[in-house]
Amino acid sequence: MTDTVISSATKEIVIGFDRLFCVIGERINPTGRKLLAAEMAAGDFTRVTSDTLAQVAAGAHMLDVNAGIPMTDEPKILAETIKLVQSLTDVPLSIDSSIVAALEAGLAVYKGKPLVNSVTGEEERLEVVLPLVKKYGAAVVAISNDETGISEDPDVRFEVAKKIVQRAADYGIHYSDIIVDPLVMPIGALGQAGRAAFSLIRRLREELKVNTTCGASNISFGLPNRHSLNQAFLSMAIGAGMTSAIMNPCRPQEMEAVHAANVLAGTDPNCTSWIMKYRDHKPAEAGATAAAAPAPAPAGGRRGGRAARAGAGASNA
Amino acid sequence: MTDTVISSATKEIVIGFDRLFCVIGERINPTGRKLLAAEMAAGDFTRVTSDTLAQVAAGAHMLDVNAGIPMTDEPKILAETIKLVQSLTDVPLSIDSSIVAALEAGLAVYKGKPLVNSVTGEEERLEVVLPLVKKYGAAVVAISNDETGISEDPDVRFEVAKKIVQRAADYGIHYSDIIVDPLVMPIGALGQAGRAAFSLIRRLREELKVNTTCGASNISFGLPNRHSLNQAFLSMAIGAGMTSAIMNPCRPQEMEAVHAANVLAGTDPNCTSWIMKYRDHKPAEAGATAAAAPAPAPAGGRRGGRAARAGAGASNA
Repeated sequence: MTDTVISSATKEIVIGFDRLFCVIGERINPTGRKLLAAEMAAGDFTRVTSDTLAQVAAGAHMLDVNAGIPMTDEPKILAETIKLVQSLTDVPLSIDSSIVAALEAGLAVYKGKPLVNSVTGEEERLEVVLPLVKKYGAAVVAISNDETGISEDPDVRFEVAKKIVQRAADYGIHYSDIIVDPLVMPIGALGQAGRAAFSLIRRLREELKVNTTCGASNISFGLPNRHSLNQAFLSMAIGAGMTSAIMNPCRPQEMEAVHAANVLAGTDPNCTSWIMKYRDHKPAEAGATAAAAPAPAPAGGRRGGRAARAGAGASNA
Repeated sequence: MTDTVISSATKEIVIGFDRLFCVIGERINPTGRKLLAAEMAAGDFTRVTSDTLAQVAAGAHMLDVNAGIPMTDEPKILAETIKLVQSLTDVPLSIDSSIVAALEAGLAVYKGKPLVNSVTGEEERLEVVLPLVKKYGAAVVAISNDETGISEDPDVRFEVAKKIVQRAADYGIHYSDIIVDPLVMPIGALGQAGRAAFSLIRRLREELKVNTTCGASNISFGLPNRHSLNQAFLSMAIGAGMTSAIMNPCRPQEMEAVHAANVLAGTDPNCTSWIMKYRDHKPAEAGATAAAAPAPAPAGGRRGGRAARAGAGASNA
C-alpha cells in the first residue's frame, strides 16, 4: 500500500494502491501539435488556457505541462506556462521536459509539490535530475530505459526501474515519491507489448511497491479503432495494478474505461461515483428484471445456473 | 497450457490459454424472456431460429441452449431445440439445464462433443451429472458453489472448484474437460466482486490449470450504464486469464472489448483479426503522425519522454 502525494498550493491528490486511478492530462504538449507550438513560441497561451480548462472539466486529476518546442527558450516558456496553468486551476501538475534547465525553471516557479517528468536509468540523467527532485521535494516519474535503450525483455526493464529506485534512495528520495513508467510499446509492432506491460505493472507493484504510470495511447499506435484499444488497455492495466496514466481526459471512451475499472477494482466505494455519473443513463430494464437473483440461482434448483445468468443480460423478448 | 475441445458434427472449437477468447452466446434461454418462453412452450421456434442466426452472425463461437420453462416437459423441449439449432448452425453447443433428465435428453440427440452446463460442488449434483458427462464424452462447466451456497470468500470458492475437479477425475474426466465458473456476483451488491473474480480466475488458471467461464453481465446487475461496466469487466477478466464467457454476442460494446482484449493479451497474432474488422474505421491521423517514434523517444534527448507519448494520442491542434 504505497501513496504518492502530489499537490498544488491549495489541493493535494494521492496516487496509490486502492485509490481512484489518477488521470494525468496530456494535452498541454506542443509535440505533434504545430499550431499549439507556434502559439506558445509566440507567447500566445490561448490554447493552453482552453486545454487546461477542458481537461479539468473532463475529469483530469493532474495536468502534464510540456513546452518542448525546438529553437526556443524552453525553460522560460515552461515556467510561464506553469505559472499560467496554476493561475487557472488548482489541480497539481507534472513538469515535463527532457531539458534539465527547463525542469529547474519549472520547479522554481511551481507552487506546491509537483511531479517531475521524468528521469531515466541513464547515469547522466540520474545524476542531474535526482538532486533536483530532492532539492525541491518533488516526486518523479522513472522511465525504465537506460543507456542501452528500451529492452524488449520485461525483466531487464524491471531491473532498470529497480536501479532508479535504489539510486533515488541514495539521494534521500523515498520510493513512494517515485512513479515508474514501464514503457508501453505499440502492440501493432510488438505483439507481446500488452502482456509485457501488464506483467511489469504487477511486478512493480508487488515487488518494488511503487506506483505506476504510462502513456496509455502508445499501445494502439498505427492500428485502426485506436480508442477502443486504448479503452481495453486502460481497464486491463488498472486490473494489473497500474495507478495512473498520462492520457487525454477529453476522450469519453477512455475516461469511461477508467471509471468502470475503478468500480471493478473496488476503488469506487458503493459505486458512488459511477452511479452519480451515469444515473440518468438509460438502464437495461430487462436485465434488471430477469436477474433479480443473479448469483444465488446456481445453488438453487429449478431456475438453473444459467437462468439468472443469461437473464442478467437478456433483453425482454 | 490447457485446451478444452468442444465440437459439433462438423466443427471443432478449442477453449484454451493463449487462444482467442471463446464467446458463448447466451440468448437461447427463456428465463426472463416471457415471449420466448411462451413460444417455446407452444412449439414455436421462430425466435430460437432468429436468435441462433443473429448470435452466430455477431461472432459467437458457441451457443448456450436452455429450455427452462416452468410447467413444461423441459427434456422434450430442450432436445427439440438442440436438434433445431444444430440444423441451423455448425457452432458447438452448451447444453444448459438444472434438470438432469433434460441434460440427458439433450446429450442423447446432440451431434458432436458438447459442453454440459452445469455441475456444482453439491454431492447430489456431482453424483448424477459427472457420470452423464463421462458417458457422453462431454466437457462440463463446474460452478464453484456447494450445499453451503456461494461463499463470499474466494478461497472457499477455489476449494469447491478443486473438489469438483478431483471428483471428476474419479469418474475418469480429465481436468481439461472442465471449465470452471468462479461465479461473478453483482458489484453493486458486493464491492469486492470484481477483485474476487479476477483473483479466482488467476488462481484457477495458475494452480488448477483449468479453463474458465462466467456469466459476464451479472457483474453490472442493478447499476446504470451496464454495457460499459460489462465491457471493462470482460477486458479485465481476459487480462486475468479468463478463457470464455457466456454473454450476449449481439452487444457491440461487449464484443469490441473482447476483440481488443484478444489483441492486448497477444492471442490475435499481428492484430490480424482486429485490423480486418476495423481497417475502415476512421484512424487517428494526428496520433499516427505525432507518434512516429512513440517508444524510443524517452531514451533520446531533445524530444523528451512525454513528447512522443502525448503525441501518440494528441489531436493535431
